[in-house]
Amino acid sequence: MNHDVKGLSALEPGSRADGFFLVKSVETKTASNGKNYIDFLLSDKSGDIMGKLWESTPDDEKGFAGNSIVKVRGVVNKWKDSVQLKIEKIRNITGEDGVNVEDFVRSAPYEGEQMYNVMLGYISKIKSEDIKRIVAHIAESKKERLLYYPAAKSNHHAIRAGLLYHVTTMLASAELLLGIYDFLDPDILYAGIILHDISKLDEMDANELGIVSDYTVEGKLLGHIIQAIKELELAGAALGTSKEVLLVLQHMILSHHYEADFGSPKKPLIPEAEMLHHLDMIDARMYDFKNALSDVSAGDFSQRVWSLENRAVYKPSL
Amino acid sequence: MNHDVKGLSALEPGSRADGFFLVKSVETKTASNGKNYIDFLLSDKSGDIMGKLWESTPDDEKGFAGNSIVKVRGVVNKWKDSVQLKIEKIRNITGEDGVNVEDFVRSAPYEGEQMYNVMLGYISKIKSEDIKRIVAHIAESKKERLLYYPAAKSNHHAIRAGLLYHVTTMLASAELLLGIYDFLDPDILYAGIILHDISKLDEMDANELGIVSDYTVEGKLLGHIIQAIKELELAGAALGTSKEVLLVLQHMILSHHYEADFGSPKKPLIPEAEMLHHLDMIDARMYDFKNALSDVSAGDFSQRVWSLENRAVYKPSL
Amino acid sequence: MNHDVKGLSALEPGSRADGFFLVKSVETKTASNGKNYIDFLLSDKSGDIMGKLWESTPDDEKGFAGNSIVKVRGVVNKWKDSVQLKIEKIRNITGEDGVNVEDFVRSAPYEGEQMYNVMLGYISKIKSEDIKRIVAHIAESKKERLLYYPAAKSNHHAIRAGLLYHVTTMLASAELLLGIYDFLDPDILYAGIILHDISKLDEMDANELGIVSDYTVEGKLLGHIIQAIKELELAGAALGTSKEVLLVLQHMILSHHYEADFGSPKKPLIPEAEMLHHLDMIDARMYDFKNALSDVSAGDFSQRVWSLENRAVYKPSL
Amino acid sequence: MNHDVKGLSALEPGSRADGFFLVKSVETKTASNGKNYIDFLLSDKSGDIMGKLWESTPDDEKGFAGNSIVKVRGVVNKWKDSVQLKIEKIRNITGEDGVNVEDFVRSAPYEGEQMYNVMLGYISKIKSEDIKRIVAHIAESKKERLLYYPAAKSNHHAIRAGLLYHVTTMLASAELLLGIYDFLDPDILYAGIILHDISKLDEMDANELGIVSDYTVEGKLLGHIIQAIKELELAGAALGTSKEVLLVLQHMILSHHYEADFGSPKKPLIPEAEMLHHLDMIDARMYDFKNALSDVSAGDFSQRVWSLENRAVYKPSL
Amino acid sequence: MNHDVKGLSALEPGSRADGFFLVKSVETKTASNGKNYIDFLLSDKSGDIMGKLWESTPDDEKGFAGNSIVKVRGVVNKWKDSVQLKIEKIRNITGEDGVNVEDFVRSAPYEGEQMYNVMLGYISKIKSEDIKRIVAHIAESKKERLLYYPAAKSNHHAIRAGLLYHVTTMLASAELLLGIYDFLDPDILYAGIILHDISKLDEMDANELGIVSDYTVEGKLLGHIIQAIKELELAGAALGTSKEVLLVLQHMILSHHYEADFGSPKKPLIPEAEMLHHLDMIDARMYDFKNALSDVSAGDFSQRVWSLENRAVYKPSL
Amino acid sequence: MNHDVKGLSALEPGSRADGFFLVKSVETKTASNGKNYIDFLLSDKSGDIMGKLWESTPDDEKGFAGNSIVKVRGVVNKWKDSVQLKIEKIRNITGEDGVNVEDFVRSAPYEGEQMYNVMLGYISKIKSEDIKRIVAHIAESKKERLLYYPAAKSNHHAIRAGLLYHVTTMLASAELLLGIYDFLDPDILYAGIILHDISKLDEMDANELGIVSDYTVEGKLLGHIIQAIKELELAGAALGTSKEVLLVLQHMILSHHYEADFGSPKKPLIPEAEMLHHLDMIDARMYDFKNALSDVSAGDFSQRVWSLENRAVYKPSL
Repeated sequence: MNHDVKGLSALEPGSRADGFFLVKSVETKTASNGKNYIDFLLSDKSGDIMGKLWESTPDDEKGFAGNSIVKVRGVVNKWKDSVQLKIEKIRNITGEDGVNVEDFVRSAPYEGEQMYNVMLGYISKIKSEDIKRIVAHIAESKKERLLYYPAAKSNHHAIRAGLLYHVTTMLASAELLLGIYDFLDPDILYAGIILHDISKLDEMDANELGIVSDYTVEGKLLGHIIQAIKELELAGAALGTSKEVLLVLQHMILSHHYEADFGSPKKPLIPEAEMLHHLDMIDARMYDFKNALSDVSAGDFSQRVWSLENRAVYKPSL
Repeated sequence: MNHDVKGLSALEPGSRADGFFLVKSVETKTASNGKNYIDFLLSDKSGDIMGKLWESTPDDEKGFAGNSIVKVRGVVNKWKDSVQLKIEKIRNITGEDGVNVEDFVRSAPYEGEQMYNVMLGYISKIKSEDIKRIVAHIAESKKERLLYYPAAKSNHHAIRAGLLYHVTTMLASAELLLGIYDFLDPDILYAGIILHDISKLDEMDANELGIVSDYTVEGKLLGHIIQAIKELELAGAALGTSKEVLLVLQHMILSHHYEADFGSPKKPLIPEAEMLHHLDMIDARMYDFKNALSDVSAGDFSQRVWSLENRAVYKPSL
Repeated sequence: MNHDVKGLSALEPGSRADGFFLVKSVETKTASNGKNYIDFLLSDKSGDIMGKLWESTPDDEKGFAGNSIVKVRGVVNKWKDSVQLKIEKIRNITGEDGVNVEDFVRSAPYEGEQMYNVMLGYISKIKSEDIKRIVAHIAESKKERLLYYPAAKSNHHAIRAGLLYHVTTMLASAELLLGIYDFLDPDILYAGIILHDISKLDEMDANELGIVSDYTVEGKLLGHIIQAIKELELAGAALGTSKEVLLVLQHMILSHHYEADFGSPKKPLIPEAEMLHHLDMIDARMYDFKNALSDVSAGDFSQRVWSLENRAVYKPSL
Repeated sequence: MNHDVKGLSALEPGSRADGFFLVKSVETKTASNGKNYIDFLLSDKSGDIMGKLWESTPDDEKGFAGNSIVKVRGVVNKWKDSVQLKIEKIRNITGEDGVNVEDFVRSAPYEGEQMYNVMLGYISKIKSEDIKRIVAHIAESKKERLLYYPAAKSNHHAIRAGLLYHVTTMLASAELLLGIYDFLDPDILYAGIILHDISKLDEMDANELGIVSDYTVEGKLLGHIIQAIKELELAGAALGTSKEVLLVLQHMILSHHYEADFGSPKKPLIPEAEMLHHLDMIDARMYDFKNALSDVSAGDFSQRVWSLENRAVYKPSL
Repeated sequence: MNHDVKGLSALEPGSRADGFFLVKSVETKTASNGKNYIDFLLSDKSGDIMGKLWESTPDDEKGFAGNSIVKVRGVVNKWKDSVQLKIEKIRNITGEDGVNVEDFVRSAPYEGEQMYNVMLGYISKIKSEDIKRIVAHIAESKKERLLYYPAAKSNHHAIRAGLLYHVTTMLASAELLLGIYDFLDPDILYAGIILHDISKLDEMDANELGIVSDYTVEGKLLGHIIQAIKELELAGAALGTSKEVLLVLQHMILSHHYEADFGSPKKPLIPEAEMLHHLDMIDARMYDFKNALSDVSAGDFSQRVWSLENRAVYKPSL
Repeated sequence: MNHDVKGLSALEPGSRADGFFLVKSVETKTASNGKNYIDFLLSDKSGDIMGKLWESTPDDEKGFAGNSIVKVRGVVNKWKDSVQLKIEKIRNITGEDGVNVEDFVRSAPYEGEQMYNVMLGYISKIKSEDIKRIVAHIAESKKERLLYYPAAKSNHHAIRAGLLYHVTTMLASAELLLGIYDFLDPDILYAGIILHDISKLDEMDANELGIVSDYTVEGKLLGHIIQAIKELELAGAALGTSKEVLLVLQHMILSHHYEADFGSPKKPLIPEAEMLHHLDMIDARMYDFKNALSDVSAGDFSQRVWSLENRAVYKPSL
């Protein structure tokens, strides 16, 4: 399986692939010669490739489903500006193949359960009982999905358990910078980090592989910032949280995208909210830069990255 | 009292004023010759004027308070680009003067109670029990302040009971246009109109004269759109409102300013939300145009009006 | 003819079509296997579909023309993100088919002549002889094309007689809202509505089916707002219209797009111009929302709609 | 008269002035000690200064008028960030003073009549009879005001006969650049230059001193670009100008501000329109730069100049 | 060779081509029927066309290289909205064909050497020894590449020796306008024109045909404006140029794009910098207009031109 | 000296001041009663106040200078929306007063020398000899001014030695975050932080009190970003720094303002440049928040802060 060495993302026109892949989506279409073919979006941990099964039969068209594993053999070629895989052979796996769906999904570098516990550790550091109680309450009620939810459909941290990975990394950064900017209130900052994206769980539909199928109706009509404010409002009412605590945490969430055009009708008005925004940006941008440069040679540029404002970024040759 | 004929807003440099005014604010300052004077913001139903009591005594400085009525005599002169009143005589009213504070406040053309009942009439037209119940619940719980709250600190409908006046005018327009755009759902549109600005009651502090002193802390950190969504969330939980009704009403509120820069993170995604936005704009703009042109002669332009995007508007001589 | 039941817009991949269609455009191209094929843009009242006749013969390539009716049989399949029709059989209609080209064109719900008379009714309500005369003069001189012109090439009211439908609906709304905002001058508002888009007749070339082929040279170099101002200037000179009437009507037209970026160098400076803008927006937006949601199920979203600022809009499940 | 050497614009705090000035405007106001004073906007050819006559008498207040000449003695002092003249003595001139109002007005460096003839020379170079006729017709009908009108109220070429100076300088530049970009049509370019700002004569009210008092009603409701298009429409109808000539000239005018936000709904679509825009910019900007740097020493910066996008510009010390 | 008469850019669907072309790029791809084909970007002096060699053999795939000349026979057809050439026969040229690569490249209308001498002539007119020395130094050190470098990858003056053509045309315009705006310093203006784009030589990689392959790493990380400032800094240090000269020339370069969004962090603060910007714009725009309209008939519009802000421009029928 | 307890910034209308202050600027002006007075901008470590000496004598007007210490007695009053000090007595200090100018200047919390050594410590951690050498070279050559320069004229860190304070705080944050984002190159990040604002030393003129009088000519024509790139270019040439090192460091500087509108023509293209930008933002914003909230009570808002995009920020009452 020559693709194993470097993974899908390293395949170049002319090379061959032979191995197991995750089917992210599958769709039958009609070619310009009037015959049917099947588009498979195949992936492994390194990335995705579009696979084409030309002149498909009705059996082919019924035989495959998304979020399953297939064994594929084929050759890579070029179509416009992207590479695709011309599939020569494809079949579903059997028990004998001994492969596991989770091995084919890009995931956070730590286990969900482990990161969840890290997050609990930060909750336990919160001194205000009022803040601690509401954060713990929400974290607990969302635990199941937190263990596998990504942080996005296609941007930064769009990987299994990416949301928890994003949050726990930000918590670690926050703890360090609190040593420097010691006038900040750790309670507010930790709580804001844990809650800022929590309603992405309700904004997007994702399966246990951490793959987002679509935004929810509520996600489209309100968005995760508003959804989180609602979540806190109900939790606060249930727990008897003080008005000021609720207000400050809701402001943290409301302002964390900073710009009205990005969904924040108010800019940060407390320093912890300002810091939350920058920690969020740093973690998202560092993730995207690292990702973009992961298979770039020194002295070369990456492809353009949409979530980096369409920049093609550079790896210095130092 | 020669100012009575046309009111404060008609006073020109050189004319004299002699009559009763509302003191909106009062402040002692020091002039460039080092002596104290008092700035009175005086108003009657026609508008405001800045009054100056030069070389004030300590008695003067302690003797006057905001939101009271004074008797004033003075002469109007010009300071930079605005007119002001040089106060010659000023005293607080006594019972014998027989004047009433409410006569000095610009108010909606209908009584609060009367407009409240018009609004109840529209609530009773809502067919969905779920929608009717939550709208009625909120309307009732806010009744007391609705009777006198303005719709703004200084923009459109910044008059006593201006908020109810704005809402009931929009309801009347909506009812008419529903006859033309009959695919719209009246329930959603009526509910949206009644609720869209309801949390201005919590965003601003206003007294019973309908004069706003300031924005509230919550108003500054969240804003009335987010506050209304919270209000609905709690009311919906208390009443067991269906998720879809709650979502649609919250979306109506969230999107009614249309532009992210004006506080709406989502644009209208249902036609009733689109219509709500335009009815809101029409009512605000018609109010401001009418107001701006009220004392302009045919063939002339008004002053620049901030809430009309700083336009100086025109009265045709037709 | 199974397509008849729901019309073209309801066809899904795998279904078959067999019936009569309007050919909106026809073009011979070369496929990636080097062979010729013909692209037909087919339509019925429900919408459009791209039809492909593969491996076309020279006879095919000469045999068909735009704005004619054809009988077609074929199967629907998917190409990228859109559906298209693989044509199996196609022929021009004959007299025996008994079909009429106008039945294949999306049209306003009322006859052109009927709407024209409604418009005349509003002109007769104008009290100012000066205004009435110039509006009537222009309406009369444009009558022939008004009966079938659409209001746009591809946006709102891009249907046969769409322009008159747009204008008469706005007139009806205006009449109702004049009852609420009674300080507005009905003469100016009615005249402004009737004239605001009148030069779309000269900005675009459309045939009697109400289909726009292109913008005119003058349309591209000046645009319908400037063209209408010129039209009024000449009509005013011919009729001896008063300078103020002419100026006010030209300002109504000039400012009705509101934003400089959308073609209005001046913002509305009279209240009737402000109202005209909002009535125009409401009618355009309501048309687009209704259209977008016409075949959407409750709880679902439409496709993205360009003229709704690319929103995918929602039909509540209430 | 020590101010004569350098003129008003060179006066610094502490220096004295004694001489004749033009009164641009005069206004009685009330000071913060409650006494009246008079604000005179005084000017000579070098610039303006605000003069203050403290503790004015009723005779003073009735004795002076705008656009007249006064003899003034006083001392220059500083008020906030600007200088002003404390008037010690002021009187109206008499015949014996032997001064002439035009000597006090900043004017173009050439006589109006002379520049008008230069412009006629360019008109005579136009080969197309159609274009020549309409340009000559309009130039002739506007001759009287062209001889003294400025090009602006306060921006570039806000001097007596500034409009003709602007146009004739642009014509000279155009003639030179036509030698380099020889695919341009001189007829269109000359006509466009002569007509582009012609309706500033109707957009602004100016007196024979070339001082603008205000914008006209038509100027505010339509603006000089639209006014010029109307002017051409009527002239074209009267002269039987060809449709294409009229269209091209109207497009030249419509697009010459280039940006929608600056009043041009269409960008230049013919090369002569593109060139017109740049020649206009160059002449305006060179005027403003020259003006701003006229009394700046090498190595220093000017004041901020509004019409140079608020830049403070620099005179190199080379 | 029927294409010779009008050149590639005049080929229309259905016409045949038979002749010599430059291969700008060549790439093997896989069609939707799974077979390989070769994309040739072919060009002659009139423009480019995409050539397709269907069902290519491995010999074909190895047999052709960029920047070489081939003999091609084929037929033009339409693919989406563009034309392409279906190649029937293609071979590399031999010595016997007697064709020269430079005849196939769009070039400036003058020889590089000739334009370089024109530029030297302007340098010799510079009176300041300090300015003349540094300009001459840089011009000399860059001479070799100046003789063939284009001014852009795909915008204005993207032709062989286009950079020198751009500079020398601007110098000629500058000389003329200095006669009108005679307060400008010719030394600074000539130097600024010569240096403003000089580091495009280092921003882009171009071969001797004047074809740009890509931007350099330094070009992407800094851009030609910053690179030129560095170039001057080193040259100034080597030559002992005065600080003020260096500063003024660096400011000329820094500000010549005028807008921050186009790469100029400072706007022009000296009049020569303002003039440089406009001369640059005029020359770029006139080039693009002339180019866009070169094969457009009177009364027609060009294709949309990206570097003209996507305008489709018009050729009047006068 | 009752002002000592809380400092100038705590003075409220009506309170008295009696003590020593730094004169930041002094200027004689003329009041509206025609008499002279002197404006003193007085400051201590807590902030500034405008002091007015009414009816000043010529002796007063010659007797005081900026950047000196005076003894002042007076009373605080209100003028428009700000407070000012009416000076009753003022004199220059004598040796006997025993006060030191540096005690009156807001300074960084650490000594310049101490922070400089911290910075040297980070330079010593740089592993690349090439990078270390150029950073050390520049740091050394700038040492004298670094010890007292502020980071701005009026924004964040506009205090004595503010620039070094800003840089060393960022270095400390960087060191911590490098532990989390360990794919970043510490050499590049440390070097970028040390150099990013280094040319503020040449962009602004500041005295040893850390008070900026103005921007330099070079600062206005080029700006500190471009100045730093030049500085590096010369240092790199002198030291023989590798091209790639120089390029990467110059890109760090060029992109650190992130937005073109804020002076960065290129966005960060390497992750260290992205991180530099966010560390810079965090440190500036935390400084401004801390400063703005320093004398705000819990539950209150600060004044609007220009460098916080005009926000009035909030201190929670938790």
